Amino acid sequence: MKHFISTLDWSREELQAFLDHARALKAQPIQPLLKDKAVALVFFNPSLRTRTSFEIGTKQLGGHAVVLEPGKGAWPIEFEVGAKMDADPEEHVIEVARVLSRYCDIIAVRAFPKFEDWTEDRRDKVIRSFAQYATVPVINMETITHPCQELAHMLTLQEKLGQTDGKKFLLTWTYHPKPLNTAVANSALIIAAKFGMDVTLLCPTPEYELDRRYMDAARESCAQNGRSLTVSHDIAEAYAGADVVYAKSWGAIPYFGNWDAEREIRKNYAHFIVNSEKMALTNQALFSHCLPVRREVKVTGEVLDSAQSIAIDEAENRLHVQKAIMAGLLS
Amino acid sequence: MKHFISTLDWSREELQAFLDHARALKAQPIQPLLKDKAVALVFFNPSLRTRTSFEIGTKQLGGHAVVLEPGKGAWPIEFEVGAKMDADPEEHVIEVARVLSRYCDIIAVRAFPKFEDWTEDRRDKVIRSFAQYATVPVINMETITHPCQELAHMLTLQEKLGQTDGKKFLLTWTYHPKPLNTAVANSALIIAAKFGMDVTLLCPTPEYELDRRYMDAARESCAQNGRSLTVSHDIAEAYAGADVVYAKSWGAIPYFGNWDAEREIRKNYAHFIVNSEKMALTNQALFSHCLPVRREVKVTGEVLDSAQSIAIDEAENRLHVQKAIMAGLLS
Amino acid sequence: MKHFISTLDWSREELQAFLDHARALKAQPIQPLLKDKAVALVFFNPSLRTRTSFEIGTKQLGGHAVVLEPGKGAWPIEFEVGAKMDADPEEHVIEVARVLSRYCDIIAVRAFPKFEDWTEDRRDKVIRSFAQYATVPVINMETITHPCQELAHMLTLQEKLGQTDGKKFLLTWTYHPKPLNTAVANSALIIAAKFGMDVTLLCPTPEYELDRRYMDAARESCAQNGRSLTVSHDIAEAYAGADVVYAKSWGAIPYFGNWDAEREIRKNYAHFIVNSEKMALTNQALFSHCLPVRREVKVTGEVLDSAQSIAIDEAENRLHVQKAIMAGLLS
Repeated sequence: MKHFISTLDWSREELQAFLDHARALKAQPIQPLLKDKAVALVFFNPSLRTRTSFEIGTKQLGGHAVVLEPGKGAWPIEFEVGAKMDADPEEHVIEVARVLSRYCDIIAVRAFPKFEDWTEDRRDKVIRSFAQYATVPVINMETITHPCQELAHMLTLQEKLGQTDGKKFLLTWTYHPKPLNTAVANSALIIAAKFGMDVTLLCPTPEYELDRRYMDAARESCAQNGRSLTVSHDIAEAYAGADVVYAKSWGAIPYFGNWDAEREIRKNYAHFIVNSEKMALTNQALFSHCLPVRREVKVTGEVLDSAQSIAIDEAENRLHVQKAIMAGLLS
Repeated sequence: MKHFISTLDWSREELQAFLDHARALKAQPIQPLLKDKAVALVFFNPSLRTRTSFEIGTKQLGGHAVVLEPGKGAWPIEFEVGAKMDADPEEHVIEVARVLSRYCDIIAVRAFPKFEDWTEDRRDKVIRSFAQYATVPVINMETITHPCQELAHMLTLQEKLGQTDGKKFLLTWTYHPKPLNTAVANSALIIAAKFGMDVTLLCPTPEYELDRRYMDAARESCAQNGRSLTVSHDIAEAYAGADVVYAKSWGAIPYFGNWDAEREIRKNYAHFIVNSEKMALTNQALFSHCLPVRREVKVTGEVLDSAQSIAIDEAENRLHVQKAIMAGLLS
Repeated sequence: MKHFISTLDWSREELQAFLDHARALKAQPIQPLLKDKAVALVFFNPSLRTRTSFEIGTKQLGGHAVVLEPGKGAWPIEFEVGAKMDADPEEHVIEVARVLSRYCDIIAVRAFPKFEDWTEDRRDKVIRSFAQYATVPVINMETITHPCQELAHMLTLQEKLGQTDGKKFLLTWTYHPKPLNTAVANSALIIAAKFGMDVTLLCPTPEYELDRRYMDAARESCAQNGRSLTVSHDIAEAYAGADVVYAKSWGAIPYFGNWDAEREIRKNYAHFIVNSEKMALTNQALFSHCLPVRREVKVTGEVLDSAQSIAIDEAENRLHVQKAIMAGLLS
């Protein structure tokens, strides 16, 4: 039994097998691969695409998904092992994971970081705890990485570009009024590197660099593939010749728990918005963003609605890759 | 592809075809008309009947419905085209509609007006935006009209009365402690007129008349059918000889955004409650209300529980007509 | 038609038939016993196990469950007959029960007491109202008793012990920071007595004794079976020789609506926690708790994770017994 928590745990070949299966499922969506199976979708945070695509995808494979929202419709949960549980949580993840494993064949979890202490957040405690105590496979629906989004992105790139090796991939930070999760940024970095692209991370200052765990992993993948990982704070330079522009906003790690200070820095960088002028510097790059996206803040409507934009295709591909992942984990 | 947003967009014959199909589905509820299809049920407001009947109806036709609640389990949504999205909403209806269209075969939307500015509310922006950007049919689950309720009401009247032509239909305003949506009232008016009834709108003062768009449409239908549309502020006169009494409360349009002032007027009209004395003035009229209904405020329990009350039958018929609408839109 | 609201309404033989069917369904989970049927799951309170197991169980039998949360996604509900409904609730249980009966084949309800006035709470008004107005069977998903939990517990005991007759059953109160529902305690008492065990209720003071309705019923069952019901405030004496230790916390009935005073008493009894020292006094007793459970407050992790703990098995058995109950009520 293997969990799907981070693509760092999976080889390029294994991930390509998921992508190939996803392409087959896209062509033929109704297949009884999860017949009479049950999937628990545990959401600690909101979701539109993830919930809809997992729920419908499970149904298309003959199974049934149950949506659980701890702290809303379901009981709040404790994650510290050995805790004396006299505060808010009514039950421990140990029981939750064990009981759901009796009812369900897969447990999928969305648990964003708390944004107060990155040292704590980077442990990825919620999903790691589920994985530790569950007796069925656990799937990451976004925690501090977003591996389902990675595969959806890669499937879309392969559909549009064929091979991705040697393509120039730009991950650009964008402004957003709130500090956001680094998950999709971490994920974009590692999947682009793993699939043989030259990767550039564009961000306003060194403080916006991503966690070393993902920077190092991407750098290592690039090295193995004979490619490079570049960090840039120069917009024109970074966009020049890019084949793919992936946009995302995130909070600067040194400011976790101190967001008022970060806001003062961040507000100077609204000009990182993706627009047609910047896209004109690229090699007719494809544009994407994982959604939800704020128009005219992270990207102009002009770019998002352009023929180069693959954001909607990528969102659709969430459905297909997730079906492949679920089927793969149970096969 | 055609949306089901307002019955003003559909002819009497087309609507009758939905009703005839609904009757057949009521007799034989399990049919694979939505086999392997997915329906998104997008709720911006609460629901009991609508959610339950759409979800079960979809299942009875072989499909699967996903319930989404933007701002609760799902991300808040922006509707202004071209907005610089630096406030609350995390994504634009453009993306929501496009992505859901990739996952689902139908998108159904409930979006009540905001009750602050009727000029704005009457644009029906939320569902019109979904319809504009979706690439699949959109169904109105109540916005500023409630067309599914219209068909459920009409199916019930046809079951009880046979032909509705020439019957006297009374839509009576009732008291309610809060100003409510005019949707069901607008809908009652236009469907009763379209199906050949003589229509009376009873309300306390001219300020409680409905929007001109619906008054005019009803007047025009009545004229075409050789019937009349009457506005009355006289309870006894309005009830006299009625064949159908449909009760609903709504807020007065001139007071949108100024509800404290409206409350001072409204509180004088608690006697508009439907009771046995008033029903005795009618031609043994059928009584209905769309539910939810406040007992002893809008109608006495005596009337609601009487043999003349068709409110529960009408609620059941929501299931059957909605199945017919979904099947029809995809056929 | 019969409801499943309290096991007091069912004979031991009838309940055993549910248990036997549950065992068969555990061996062969996929059976078309609810084919094309719909089940409404009405939750006035949070749930993890109940919701998941009912939803998946219904699906495994070929049916479909709809989750409704009045006051959240659905309208708030009035329960007083004859009330003038000018407060919060938008509709009466009369309409809710009648309408859901048109859409669904079973209505299951979770409605915890309000903890303000036990005289009122013990009427069990919410579920009794649903049962009164519904025209389909109603199932109790926990109100002031929790009969599904009872059967899950009993199935687990029969799996582990074979016959339960003559076994010594200890129901022990435990500390919890908040006053909790007595439902599971009431239920443990009556089911253990009904199935022929010698029952001991251990609690800190006489004020923590359970409602006379359940104490008397248990005493009567014990008498019929030639067993005894004992109330004890002596931990060592109560644990001595026990075959089953069932732990639960609850608020003292005389303090309903006066919880600040109760807290002052309760806080002196944290030592009622189930731990290995106490378990050592038993006849190698099985340990259980209905979940959710607070570790290190109600029970130590050591006991909960031990081979004697059957809490997870009992939670799994919720799935199987509920399927048997649903199938039984419709057969």
